[in-house]
Amino acid sequence: MYRLLEGLRVIEGSAFIAAPMCGMTLAQFGADVIRFDQIGGGIDYHRWPVTADDTSIYWAEMNKGKRSFAVDLRNPAGQELIAALICAPGAHAGIFSTNLPARGFLAYDKLAARRPDLIQHEIVGDRHGSSALDYTVNAKVGFPYITGPEGDERPVNHVLPAWDIATAYHAAIDILAAERHRRLTGKGQRMQLALADVALAAVAHLGYVGEVKINRTTRARHGNYLYGALGRDFVTADGQRVMIIAVSAKQWQGLIKASGLAAEVAALATRLNLDFDREGDRFVARRELCELIEPWMKSQPLAELAPVFAACGICWDRYQTVWDLVENDPDCSPAHPLFTAIEQPGIGRYPVPGAAPTVFSEPRLAPRPAPRVGEHTDEILAQILGLDSAAIGRLHDQGVVAGAR
Amino acid sequence: MYRLLEGLRVIEGSAFIAAPMCGMTLAQFGADVIRFDQIGGGIDYHRWPVTADDTSIYWAEMNKGKRSFAVDLRNPAGQELIAALICAPGAHAGIFSTNLPARGFLAYDKLAARRPDLIQHEIVGDRHGSSALDYTVNAKVGFPYITGPEGDERPVNHVLPAWDIATAYHAAIDILAAERHRRLTGKGQRMQLALADVALAAVAHLGYVGEVKINRTTRARHGNYLYGALGRDFVTADGQRVMIIAVSAKQWQGLIKASGLAAEVAALATRLNLDFDREGDRFVARRELCELIEPWMKSQPLAELAPVFAACGICWDRYQTVWDLVENDPDCSPAHPLFTAIEQPGIGRYPVPGAAPTVFSEPRLAPRPAPRVGEHTDEILAQILGLDSAAIGRLHDQGVVAGAR
Repeated sequence: MYRLLEGLRVIEGSAFIAAPMCGMTLAQFGADVIRFDQIGGGIDYHRWPVTADDTSIYWAEMNKGKRSFAVDLRNPAGQELIAALICAPGAHAGIFSTNLPARGFLAYDKLAARRPDLIQHEIVGDRHGSSALDYTVNAKVGFPYITGPEGDERPVNHVLPAWDIATAYHAAIDILAAERHRRLTGKGQRMQLALADVALAAVAHLGYVGEVKINRTTRARHGNYLYGALGRDFVTADGQRVMIIAVSAKQWQGLIKASGLAAEVAALATRLNLDFDREGDRFVARRELCELIEPWMKSQPLAELAPVFAACGICWDRYQTVWDLVENDPDCSPAHPLFTAIEQPGIGRYPVPGAAPTVFSEPRLAPRPAPRVGEHTDEILAQILGLDSAAIGRLHDQGVVAGAR
Repeated sequence: MYRLLEGLRVIEGSAFIAAPMCGMTLAQFGADVIRFDQIGGGIDYHRWPVTADDTSIYWAEMNKGKRSFAVDLRNPAGQELIAALICAPGAHAGIFSTNLPARGFLAYDKLAARRPDLIQHEIVGDRHGSSALDYTVNAKVGFPYITGPEGDERPVNHVLPAWDIATAYHAAIDILAAERHRRLTGKGQRMQLALADVALAAVAHLGYVGEVKINRTTRARHGNYLYGALGRDFVTADGQRVMIIAVSAKQWQGLIKASGLAAEVAALATRLNLDFDREGDRFVARRELCELIEPWMKSQPLAELAPVFAACGICWDRYQTVWDLVENDPDCSPAHPLFTAIEQPGIGRYPVPGAAPTVFSEPRLAPRPAPRVGEHTDEILAQILGLDSAAIGRLHDQGVVAGAR
């Protein structure tokens, strides 16, 4: 983590991926992110993957570095505590990030009546008020029909929850932009971000909408080929599989040089009447070009090819399984400053990532583990709401709040 | 677009997706994002998809709402103009976002000598200094081996450049966090974000590293099944395909109710000794549960099922092609406030998305088109660098800068 956002406080009511990942990202930049949950944990508290004793590895990862406030959300006194937390004074407070329904005691109007400069950011499924999840959104925007082997008609779901991740990071942008605006103008914001809208906007940003509307064409299923330039997977003599890409002129010239195929490629360009200095023409002739490259790749083991790739500036990487990545790739271990082995309570000690960027003049601090649900209930009641120990004790006795179990 | 970031200025030297999409996102929040390019356009200026006359739809989408400054990057006088732009005074300026190599005249040390509170954000391939692109990073982190039909051993590349998008949005977070810190402390930052690190961090955030390290297991290829709960694609009587998900208790109970399968599901739970109120148990029995659900889905056309889904709170969506999405789905048209039909110079008029969130108390302004390369060269030289028309004329005459063609 870094201390860039130290002092900023975000109250979070969240589940699943997008909303908690937004808060976790802000927490890894040093923000004080307080997650409130029903006593005993919310609906994603046992989400898979889980350990042998049903502790969620997923939940721990999504909530690294946050504080946890456990409260009975059905109890009006508990609801009042949350509203008071969200509306607590301070220029760096008054930010509420949620994907719980922002109704009832969480409705913007009620909260903004108490704190007019409130920033409320709500993640929803789609603009129609329907629930939507990463897989349903992806089905809607068309990627399953252009993913997977050519000639196969079946849709292929993605496994990476890309829309959740994009929504998480977009939500953090939204919140930071609104907070900046508030500091300059004093004005709060009510914002809503739909998972479906993040996907719809991205599909359009990538040119798919323009392709249909302007060119009256749409992208076909290209299997493992890159679109619009040259790129595909190849198998080496020792059965390793690598992804090779030539997008830029430099990468393309590097590939020609490394493979020694200059004459064959030139002959192909003449035969097809194409100019391979244009990346689009390399895409047009992708099959023929890959047929030339394939035997070269198959003729040598990766250990011999890799230095050639490096010397020629080829953009490539090896396909590996997640197991290989985690067990054998130093980039996914504490050999990489991104990862630090820490103890996740209830789970164990293993490498956990901090914030993704390198911030050169700030110390990179170790990532902080996820809290236990309710771990910070008492300190939050005392520090932020100013309750004394007698008042806190009463809230426990009445079952309004709970500590960690 | 919105005006939330109005006044903030970002100078951008970029290509491909992550860096320009970061700037475009900030521009859609009202920031003044100035993209500098080699006269005639940079290496991605003709990237596919392109129109019949080779104008890039991709480039236009990635650069919506920016200003363009065209300059001879190899000319020392041109380099000095860019350095002067990056280091121009003002509390809201002095931000440089790039994925060009930050060397030579773009090196942090040289720029920070002129403006000590400079924020420089550089997107790189990986921490080792190698180039990396979305497809190579994805190969490295393991998703191709768990994507695609069960039983198929081939890796399946994703088509969505998810890591580029995540990196774009993460870069915007980094910049806004650093800019906030600078306003509070006066301190600038040098930041570097590797595409590979965004992917490595995300894989770990999603629990994959913990699964291997703690559970000594890794995720198998589950085809179109959701992981950890119940979800899969189904075909209806009229041949439509839908994605159905039951993650929450509410969604699961809705599915039981809609399908009328309560008795069969209860019998299955007894037979398998599972508790389907636990989402993990629904995943364990995903095949058996989907075998029960399949005939129900196949017995009715989607038009009859859809109202049942809605009434029972089922989370679902229809698989459609990109063509269908763009041509027939109102959500991808100006019927949705996210989209506005605008004229993209050199391309034509079609629906273009603005900023993804809804910001309730700010006007949603129409997205602005991409500039032509060099469109704003003269106004930038005059407004920001304070050059008079004679000086600007000389720069044109000397071939140091250019306007739009």
